[in-house]
Amino acid sequence: MSTPTPATPPRYPAPEIQDLPEDIRAKVLEVQEKAGFVPNVFLAFARRPAEWRAFFAYHDALMLPESVGRESGLTKGEREMIVTTTSAANNCLYCVVAHGAILRIYEKKPLVADQVAINYRKADISPRQRAMLDFAMKVCQRSDEVEEADFAALHAHGFAAITAFFGLSNRMASFSGMMPNPEFYLMGRAPKAKPAA
Amino acid sequence: MSTPTPATPPRYPAPEIQDLPEDIRAKVLEVQEKAGFVPNVFLAFARRPAEWRAFFAYHDALMLPESVGRESGLTKGEREMIVTTTSAANNCLYCVVAHGAILRIYEKKPLVADQVAINYRKADISPRQRAMLDFAMKVCQRSDEVEEADFAALHAHGFAAITAFFGLSNRMASFSGMMPNPEFYLMGRAPKAKPAA
Amino acid sequence: MSTPTPATPPRYPAPEIQDLPEDIRAKVLEVQEKAGFVPNVFLAFARRPAEWRAFFAYHDALMLPESVGRESGLTKGEREMIVTTTSAANNCLYCVVAHGAILRIYEKKPLVADQVAINYRKADISPRQRAMLDFAMKVCQRSDEVEEADFAALHAHGFAAITAFFGLSNRMASFSGMMPNPEFYLMGRAPKAKPAA
Amino acid sequence: MSTPTPATPPRYPAPEIQDLPEDIRAKVLEVQEKAGFVPNVFLAFARRPAEWRAFFAYHDALMLPESVGRESGLTKGEREMIVTTTSAANNCLYCVVAHGAILRIYEKKPLVADQVAINYRKADISPRQRAMLDFAMKVCQRSDEVEEADFAALHAHGFAAITAFFGLSNRMASFSGMMPNPEFYLMGRAPKAKPAA
Amino acid sequence: MSTPTPATPPRYPAPEIQDLPEDIRAKVLEVQEKAGFVPNVFLAFARRPAEWRAFFAYHDALMLPESVGRESGLTKGEREMIVTTTSAANNCLYCVVAHGAILRIYEKKPLVADQVAINYRKADISPRQRAMLDFAMKVCQRSDEVEEADFAALHAHGFAAITAFFGLSNRMASFSGMMPNPEFYLMGRAPKAKPAA
Amino acid sequence: MSTPTPATPPRYPAPEIQDLPEDIRAKVLEVQEKAGFVPNVFLAFARRPAEWRAFFAYHDALMLPESVGRESGLTKGEREMIVTTTSAANNCLYCVVAHGAILRIYEKKPLVADQVAINYRKADISPRQRAMLDFAMKVCQRSDEVEEADFAALHAHGFAAITAFFGLSNRMASFSGMMPNPEFYLMGRAPKAKPAA
Repeated sequence: MSTPTPATPPRYPAPEIQDLPEDIRAKVLEVQEKAGFVPNVFLAFARRPAEWRAFFAYHDALMLPESVGRESGLTKGEREMIVTTTSAANNCLYCVVAHGAILRIYEKKPLVADQVAINYRKADISPRQRAMLDFAMKVCQRSDEVEEADFAALHAHGFAAITAFFGLSNRMASFSGMMPNPEFYLMGRAPKAKPAA
Repeated sequence: MSTPTPATPPRYPAPEIQDLPEDIRAKVLEVQEKAGFVPNVFLAFARRPAEWRAFFAYHDALMLPESVGRESGLTKGEREMIVTTTSAANNCLYCVVAHGAILRIYEKKPLVADQVAINYRKADISPRQRAMLDFAMKVCQRSDEVEEADFAALHAHGFAAITAFFGLSNRMASFSGMMPNPEFYLMGRAPKAKPAA
Repeated sequence: MSTPTPATPPRYPAPEIQDLPEDIRAKVLEVQEKAGFVPNVFLAFARRPAEWRAFFAYHDALMLPESVGRESGLTKGEREMIVTTTSAANNCLYCVVAHGAILRIYEKKPLVADQVAINYRKADISPRQRAMLDFAMKVCQRSDEVEEADFAALHAHGFAAITAFFGLSNRMASFSGMMPNPEFYLMGRAPKAKPAA
Repeated sequence: MSTPTPATPPRYPAPEIQDLPEDIRAKVLEVQEKAGFVPNVFLAFARRPAEWRAFFAYHDALMLPESVGRESGLTKGEREMIVTTTSAANNCLYCVVAHGAILRIYEKKPLVADQVAINYRKADISPRQRAMLDFAMKVCQRSDEVEEADFAALHAHGFAAITAFFGLSNRMASFSGMMPNPEFYLMGRAPKAKPAA
Repeated sequence: MSTPTPATPPRYPAPEIQDLPEDIRAKVLEVQEKAGFVPNVFLAFARRPAEWRAFFAYHDALMLPESVGRESGLTKGEREMIVTTTSAANNCLYCVVAHGAILRIYEKKPLVADQVAINYRKADISPRQRAMLDFAMKVCQRSDEVEEADFAALHAHGFAAITAFFGLSNRMASFSGMMPNPEFYLMGRAPKAKPAA
Repeated sequence: MSTPTPATPPRYPAPEIQDLPEDIRAKVLEVQEKAGFVPNVFLAFARRPAEWRAFFAYHDALMLPESVGRESGLTKGEREMIVTTTSAANNCLYCVVAHGAILRIYEKKPLVADQVAINYRKADISPRQRAMLDFAMKVCQRSDEVEEADFAALHAHGFAAITAFFGLSNRMASFSGMMPNPEFYLMGRAPKAKPAA
């Protein structure tokens, strides 16, 4: 069973790490250190550095609010749950696989990513999370119909902003043919092998 | 990390194996022997034995054609690829997870099930398989528009019949709240551990 | 006014009655005896006997539950009402015409088949039947959204299973170009001429 | 088998014939004379005489062009075929039943009305009529996308205007709860009984 | 900044004013006198005089009810609000621009036309007008689902008939490639320059 | 004719200019200096400064590529044309009005913004711009279906990225109830009054 190759090469060849601007290379190497590989999104967007910087600045402001000094009413896992569900609604291969992997890890639930991606109404989640995803799906699919009554749910800004941001990144990933790294598919599915004593 | 419980119990309680009619119990035990667990679909439909028998007879006639003496132009993996893609289009949790697992095993490609479920246009499949899935999606979503020109693809009957059959079973599974067995989620993702010598 | 011929011949030529396997031929002749003609569906699927047997076994388990020893909360007419409405939602020519004919006869209402096929919300049916069709349409068109609250309606399993089954047969009929027998179009519309004494 | 009553009375009570303005009453009586009954549309809209006059003036200008001195490239049957197909796409009970009856009579084809209403792609019609209905469906459902290339078909104005007019009348009939007269359901289905010699 | 020319000439050349039938020419000249230009719709439909007469008779019966002796529960501005919203839902360039201009003038609100055309849920209108537009949109997009409960809103007939009429005229305008006169785009946006004293 | 007030106040009160972080305040005052007013988007997002900075960094990287040292194959007007068309497809009131105003100014065509917003197929634009908008609409509405063949059009990255970015900002604006400044509605519609000499 060899490493699968993507059906089609991504539309835009990614630059080599050593050719990246200093600040971008530093961030990429940091991620590689932590994850053990470089998620494709970090290279795919690097052809155009100004967009790369804005994209990850936006991403971090929403997904890592503490990094910008903001407290969030959502757990890390809930944020990734919104991303995975939104990305599935947009049929975005890269984002469902990559963020689904992170969701499994944060929530410590190896099945939840597949569940919300296929049909969040059947997922093993709390009623609060269900309401959160109902709202996110409205922002995703019918944002022009969002009205006062939809705001009973708490932390609506966070829900909506994350969904809106992936209204951008899902389209970028799909359009550019970005493929998920093979590593993502398995992450968080099985208990991590304990290091041998 | 404990075994997850479904968000909601299935609508109809499944009967106990020992209470099943003889022929059904035999088939269930045979599957359990082979798979190591009883896939939920075998118990979920057993409350109504006549439907159970018809359902699996139909399933086998399409998915195991050699069992009824018919030769098929589709490989086992291709049949499961149609099922997984159709079930994803119908947002059927049980069928995407269970048949996705079998697809990974038959195709020996640990990523392909997630790929076709999320966006088959980006999947690592052959042009022939892509044409097969385009046709299956038309039968799935706009069967009234199928016309002569759609039949350039080979083996159209097989494609269409499988998709149509899951037009039935996806609805049954979704409606009855059938949940995938946890075992399915991991099947075929990693190389099987070799038995210790 | 001659017998109309179908716009296009069906895609797959039907076998001759005398060439059918014994059990299938017996059933076909029995139907012909009762109806005065052989409904096309009995021959169209007979090319592949294992599927034929499973299809009619499934059909009978749902549509003739007493034949498998099950009591149903639905009348025969109500079952056909679900079939006709489902088939119209799927734009299936064969099933709307053939099951619409049977619906007229069971319900003794010569107009009801056209009414439910065109717009069941305007049909001359009981509130209970209206609720039944609302639920069936949800299973037909958005089965992934069916939830607890939808089950207030009685006999939900029967409703859903019938609709799901025709999620299969509508696609088979449309895809294979099966045409309704001309006899169906007129059945049940006018009081039967009494046989001359 | 008694005359069915509509599920719900029409929203707006129709006026009595003797209370109608002179010109409207004359037209109604003329139709009654010819058809043997008064089609409900003639009374349903008569509450508001100015709209009644404009509606039938428009109807006649399109459906009876010779009555306004215009020659048409469409046969009477083709015009009714467009109406029946358009009305089915809009799920309008009154118009499908009433115009379907007239279509059967003009075309002398007892099955064609049901065929185009359920799935015109399967109907027993000529290639020219098929192209005509494809175009009419585009005007009906996506008129904003009609472009130069769609005009290869002949007599596009007539096609489009008829479809557009029933974009009005289907909505009026559905909204006001207008029900088809029972007579329409059977018209043109069986050869007319010859008068006894 | 020169006068823009339409991207494509309208499909059917409009007749010259002097060639029109007497009654039509009189009406056209009257409109020109009042508006300062001839709105394209008056010439575009004039090729077929019987349809022209019926179209404007219908239009006036609905939009100028006092001209046919009927009292209306809707203000002139509300009628145009329904037209503009309906036409935007149908993506009809001519009608949104032309009726949006009249809406601005009647309502004396220079922003309201753009608001209802883009998203009426965000428009600066009264709750009664919002309910009116919700109902009109149901007639426009799902008239087959209109039911008793939708009639809580007052003056439903007027709402529905106007929406239905533009279900006709939007299709005619889009199909025929009718372009709005440039004058319409600016009308009612800025306070009218007072005539110099 | 007084300044219209929004139907509903925006969901989140905007901060006062003097309370903004230094860098944001500077940018806001610069825009106010140039435009004569502060477009609401500059204040609406300022409650959360990290998102504000990322949003405008992204916006500028796409819409003002020269500001980040990138050369673009699109004119300024074409970029705004994509934004206006995308925003109309998403029914976003703020973005259609604000970017429509800028589009009119850049293209020096007072009608083009309304045209692309209502139906870009009827707009007075070049064939190249039409192809550009067709592609942008595919990214906007069916990004998962974008494939090799869609890339015949030039500068696809720019098209797609802009559309994707407004897949974010349209949702943010709609969700948060952001209203367009009244100034936008009239901008670019009439020749600028020359300053009195």
